[in-house]
Amino acid sequence: MYDVRTIDLAAQELLKKAATDEIETVWDRFDAQQPQCGFGTLGVCCRHCIQGPCRIDPFGQGPSKGICGVTADVIVARNLLRQVAAGSASHVDHAHDAVEALDLAAQGKIDYPITDEGKLRAIAAGLGLDSNMEDVNALALEVVQAAYKDMGNMSRKPMNWVVAHAPKERVEVWEKLGILPRNPDREIREALYQTTMGMDADPLNILLAIAKQGLVDGYAGLKLTTDMQDILFGTPAPVVTESNLGVLKEDYVNLVVHGHVPLLSEKIVQWARKLSPEAEAVGAKGIQVAGICCSGNEVLMRQGVPLATNYLAQELAIVTGAVDTMVVDVQCIMPSLSKIASCYHTELITTMPVVKIPGATHIPFSLENADESAQEIVRKAIKAFTKRDPKKVHIPNYRTTIMAGFSVEAISGALAKLDAEQPLKPLVDNIANGNILGVVATVGCNNVKVTQDQFHVEMVKELVKNNVLVVATGCSAHALAKAGLMNSEGTEEYAGETLKGVLKAIGEAAGLKAPLPPVLHMGSCVDNSRIGDLVTALANYLGVDSAALPVAASAPEPQHEKALSIGTWAVTMGITTHLGVVPPVLGSKEVTELLTNGLTEVIGGKFYVETEPIKAAQGLIEDIKEKRKKLGLK
Amino acid sequence: MYDVRTIDLAAQELLKKAATDEIETVWDRFDAQQPQCGFGTLGVCCRHCIQGPCRIDPFGQGPSKGICGVTADVIVARNLLRQVAAGSASHVDHAHDAVEALDLAAQGKIDYPITDEGKLRAIAAGLGLDSNMEDVNALALEVVQAAYKDMGNMSRKPMNWVVAHAPKERVEVWEKLGILPRNPDREIREALYQTTMGMDADPLNILLAIAKQGLVDGYAGLKLTTDMQDILFGTPAPVVTESNLGVLKEDYVNLVVHGHVPLLSEKIVQWARKLSPEAEAVGAKGIQVAGICCSGNEVLMRQGVPLATNYLAQELAIVTGAVDTMVVDVQCIMPSLSKIASCYHTELITTMPVVKIPGATHIPFSLENADESAQEIVRKAIKAFTKRDPKKVHIPNYRTTIMAGFSVEAISGALAKLDAEQPLKPLVDNIANGNILGVVATVGCNNVKVTQDQFHVEMVKELVKNNVLVVATGCSAHALAKAGLMNSEGTEEYAGETLKGVLKAIGEAAGLKAPLPPVLHMGSCVDNSRIGDLVTALANYLGVDSAALPVAASAPEPQHEKALSIGTWAVTMGITTHLGVVPPVLGSKEVTELLTNGLTEVIGGKFYVETEPIKAAQGLIEDIKEKRKKLGLK
Repeated sequence: MYDVRTIDLAAQELLKKAATDEIETVWDRFDAQQPQCGFGTLGVCCRHCIQGPCRIDPFGQGPSKGICGVTADVIVARNLLRQVAAGSASHVDHAHDAVEALDLAAQGKIDYPITDEGKLRAIAAGLGLDSNMEDVNALALEVVQAAYKDMGNMSRKPMNWVVAHAPKERVEVWEKLGILPRNPDREIREALYQTTMGMDADPLNILLAIAKQGLVDGYAGLKLTTDMQDILFGTPAPVVTESNLGVLKEDYVNLVVHGHVPLLSEKIVQWARKLSPEAEAVGAKGIQVAGICCSGNEVLMRQGVPLATNYLAQELAIVTGAVDTMVVDVQCIMPSLSKIASCYHTELITTMPVVKIPGATHIPFSLENADESAQEIVRKAIKAFTKRDPKKVHIPNYRTTIMAGFSVEAISGALAKLDAEQPLKPLVDNIANGNILGVVATVGCNNVKVTQDQFHVEMVKELVKNNVLVVATGCSAHALAKAGLMNSEGTEEYAGETLKGVLKAIGEAAGLKAPLPPVLHMGSCVDNSRIGDLVTALANYLGVDSAALPVAASAPEPQHEKALSIGTWAVTMGITTHLGVVPPVLGSKEVTELLTNGLTEVIGGKFYVETEPIKAAQGLIEDIKEKRKKLGLK
Repeated sequence: MYDVRTIDLAAQELLKKAATDEIETVWDRFDAQQPQCGFGTLGVCCRHCIQGPCRIDPFGQGPSKGICGVTADVIVARNLLRQVAAGSASHVDHAHDAVEALDLAAQGKIDYPITDEGKLRAIAAGLGLDSNMEDVNALALEVVQAAYKDMGNMSRKPMNWVVAHAPKERVEVWEKLGILPRNPDREIREALYQTTMGMDADPLNILLAIAKQGLVDGYAGLKLTTDMQDILFGTPAPVVTESNLGVLKEDYVNLVVHGHVPLLSEKIVQWARKLSPEAEAVGAKGIQVAGICCSGNEVLMRQGVPLATNYLAQELAIVTGAVDTMVVDVQCIMPSLSKIASCYHTELITTMPVVKIPGATHIPFSLENADESAQEIVRKAIKAFTKRDPKKVHIPNYRTTIMAGFSVEAISGALAKLDAEQPLKPLVDNIANGNILGVVATVGCNNVKVTQDQFHVEMVKELVKNNVLVVATGCSAHALAKAGLMNSEGTEEYAGETLKGVLKAIGEAAGLKAPLPPVLHMGSCVDNSRIGDLVTALANYLGVDSAALPVAASAPEPQHEKALSIGTWAVTMGITTHLGVVPPVLGSKEVTELLTNGLTEVIGGKFYVETEPIKAAQGLIEDIKEKRKKLGLK
C-alpha cells in the first residue's frame, strides 16, 4: 500500500483542491475498501457456478477444495485465464473496429482517409499479397479480407496474422505447445468455456490456454489494431509537445479526450481545429485538446496533441475546474467521472454502445456519423466553456516537454541516418559492444494500490542510469513523460554515459539537434505491438530466437486485465516480464511457480514479480546480463 | 440449505456406503464451505481489475462503490453478464464441434454417418437452401457453410440461424432492442470486453447485453447443436428403458459415459455392442453402458441406453464399486472423480483437450480417431472389470421405467395420428379447451444447495396434478425419470384428470397401447432447442407471439452458468422462467427488479424466483392462467 498517493506534483496539488471541493477520488474509495478480501487477493475464490462461492483456506485449516472438488491451483489458474481472456477480448474488439473502419474507408462509405499507403503496402507484402497493386483502396480491401479471414477462420489452421508476423523460431515453439490460435474469438470463447464448472482441472493445461490468449492479444489484438490504425491515420513520426495537467489553458476551451480508440479522437482533433473560430466567438482564444490514457497517446503520437494525464489522475483533470468537456470512448473510464463532472461545469460525454454512464451525456458515435458526432462534441465543449466558473478553476503549473512518435519506422528512420543499408545495425552494434546494455519496455497502467507513477519513474531512472534503453507505452509512457524522461534534457540528466553517447549520436545524425530521449514513447497500449515488431526485427536481423535477446518488459503498476494479457504475450515471446503489483495468483504455489519459473524452459519467458522499484531494475538488469552472457556478449 | 441431501433412494443408500468407505462427496465439501461468502452470494464482489477485489456493503454501512466508482448495480450486472456469456460459450463450443463433425462427415473424412436425411433437408429448407438437392453430402456441406457463415459473420447483419428459426414477432422485438447477435463469438468477446474495468457503467445496457447472450445461446448454441446432432445421429423417437443406478449390473462390464457430447458417446455405445464378445471372454455377461448428465440423455434419446444418474450423484456411481470405467467428455465433470475412482478399481478416462484431470487416464479423442479411441476405452473397461473387487460392490436396487425420445418430430408424429393434416391441432385444441392448462418446461441441473431432485419432483407433481403438461431436459429429466414421472404409470398416478385423458388418447392413437407419460423427455440441455422449436411451432401455428402462449419454464435446481444462459434465452423468448435457487443478483435491487419485472414490458418474459416447490408450481400456474386469460381462454 502507498505512503503518498502520487509523485505527480500536479496531481498532489489537485488532491488538495479535491479535498477542499469535497470531491471523492479513487484514493478515497480505495481507502474505504480496506481491508480488501484476502481470498480474492490470493485468487482462491471461485464464483463460476451457483453452488458457490467457494473459497480455499490458504492456511490449510479450512476447506482445501471447492464444492465440485476443484483445488486452489485450478481456481487460481481458471480465474487468471478468464482475466487474461478479458484483456485479449478488449484488444480484439478494438482491432475489429479498426478493421471495419479500414473496410468502410476503402469502400468510400465513410469519411476516413487511407493516410499511410506505404504502411499498407508493407503489411500487404508481409501477408503475401500483391503489394504493388495500383489501386490503393482495392489493396486495402484485400488486407481487410485477410484480416476478416483470420478473425472468422473456421479451419483448424492457425491464424495467419500470427504466423506472418512472429519470429519463425517462436512460431515453432508455439506450434509444439499447441497454443497457436485458430481465430481470436474462437479462442476467447474456448477460454470462457474451459473455465466453466466441470471442465479443465489441470492447472498446466489451463496455463497453456493462458499462453494462447497472450498470442490472441499480441497478434489479433495489438498488432492488428496498430496496423489498421497506422494505415488509416498514419505511422507516427517524432513530435514534440508537452505533458501533464498544466497543458490545460485558462483562456481556451479545454476539451479532453479519454479512452483508447483514435477513430473518434482523431475526428475530435480535426474538428477542434476547424471550429476554433466558434470558440473565439464566445471569448476563448481557441480550443485546447488534451488527452488522457491511450486516446491521449494516440493523438499525441500522430497529431502532437499534448498529454493531460494518465489513468489514476483522470478524475483530477475535472477537479481543475477547467475541463469544459471530457469525451470518453472505451476502457479505463472511471464511472465516478459523471458524479465529479456534475460538481463542476464539465460536460462528460460517452460515445460508444458498450460504454454508458448514468449522468453522462450520450452522443452515439459511429463510423458513418463520425464528423457529425465530433462537431457536436466540440460545440458542446464550446458551450460548456461559457458556463465555466473562474472561481472553481485551478490549473497546476506543471508541464513537461516530451518528444514522442517513436514508431519502429521512426526509429529505423533515425538509425538509417547512421547506416542506410542496415538501419538496425547501429543499434545492434551498440548493444553488442555494451554501450547499450539491453532494452526494457515499460508498459501498462497506474494502480491505486501503489503511489501513482513512482514505480515507473524510479525503476526507469535506475535502468537508464545503467545504460538500458527504455521504450514505453500506455500510462507508463505518461508517467515517464511527466517525470521528464522523454526529452533531451532527460538524457543529460538520467542516462548512463555510454547510453548517452549513443542517444546523442543518433539524435545528431537524425537532424534533431539534440539527443534522443532516454525513454522512447512508442505509443498507446495497443502499440505494444510496435515493441513486438522491434523485438521481431532484432531477432530476425540477428537470426536468433526473440527469447535470446537482451530485452525485458515491465508493467510496474498494472491495473487492468489488458495488462495481464499484454504481459502474457510478452512472456510467450520469450521475454522476462516484470510485474510491480502482484496479480491474484499467490493462492496457488503451483501456478505461481509455473508462471515465474516452471514454464520458462518450454516457453522461454517468465513473469518476474518484484514490488520494489530499484530491486526490480536490478533484477531486470541481471536478466539482461544473463542473456548477454548466453549470446557471448560481455 | 437442504434438510436431507437427496430424495433419490439409490443415492441415499450410496451416501451411507460412501461414509463407510470414507469417501468425501460433494455434500461434504459443501458443508466444509459453510458459511459461504455473503458478498459473492449477493453478487457484489468485483475481481475484474487488480486494484480490487472490491466489495459493496449490502447493509449500507461500508463502501457503496468500488475503487473505480462502480456501483453495486453495475457489479452485479457485469458479473451476471460474464456468467451468462460463459454459459453461451459452452454451448457455442459444443455447436462448433458438431458443425465440424458434419463438415468432415459430409466430406467423407471421418467415419460418422449422416443418419437423418429428412432432418437435413428440413433444416436446409428452413435456411432457404435447395433442399431437394440429390447429393446428400453436398447438401450437408451447404448447411455447414451456412453455419460457418453465421459463426464467422463479419458484417453488422444478424446471424441467420436466429432470424430463420425464431418466431417473426420475436425477431422484431429483438431488433428493436438492438440485441440480435451478429456472430456468436463476436458477442461473447464483446460481453467480456464490456465488463472489463472502465467500460459499461449502465446496468440496463448491461442487461440488454445479457439478453443478447441468451439469443447467442439459444440459436448459435442449443439450436445449432441439436440440428447438427440430429442430422448426424438421427432425430429421437420414443424409446423405453430404465433409469437410476440400479441399471448397473453386477455380472456385466459397466461402462458409464458422462458429460455432454454424443460425438464420443455414440461411438462408445457402438463399440460396446461390437466388443461384447471380448467382455464375455473375461467372464462378463456383456457390456452395460449407462449415462450420467447429458451424455446420458443423448444416448438415451437416440440409442435407448439407460440413465445411470444425474449431476449430484455422479460420484456415487463410482461408490457402487461396480463402475469399471467412467469416460468423461465435457461440462459438469466433478474434478473429485479421479480421487474417488482411485479408491475403487474404476478407471476414469478423460478425452477432450480442454478437460484434463490429474490422476485420470487421458485418451485423446478426435473426430478422426473416434473409433480407435472408443475401442481403447471399451477395452479398458473390460480390463478393469477383471480387477473389480466384489467385496466393494453395492448396486442399489432402484430402477424406474422411462419412456423418452420426445423430439418435436416424435411429438408431432404421435399427434399426427389424431390429425394428419394439422398435427399441432389436437394439442392446441386441448390447450384451448382447458384439458391441458398449459405447458411447463423443466430444465437444468442439480444444485448441492438444495436437496437433490426434490424441487424438480415436488413442483412437477403439483403441475401435472393441475393438468399442466410438462416437458423436461437435462438433469431435470433425470430427476423426473427416477421419480417415475416419465412412464405410463406416472400418468395414472400423478396426472390431473383432463391431462390424463389427453395423454391416454394420444398414447392410444400413436399405437403405444399406454398413455403418454405426464412428463415428456425432450433430451439433453442443448435439446432445450427442441422446446424452443415446439414453442415456435405453436406460436407460428396460432399466429401469435411466443410471449403470449400459456407456456412457462423452470430451472428448479440451477447450478451451472449454462443454466443461466438457457434461462436468459427463455426469457428473451417472452417466457416466464422460474429459478428455484437464487442467482447472485440480490445485491442490486435495480438489477433484481429489472430481471424479475422491469424488463417484461419490453422483452415479454421475466425471471421468477421462488425457492419453495409447491409455491413455485402455483406461481407458474398463475402465470399460465393470466396468459390464457389474455388469449381469451377460460
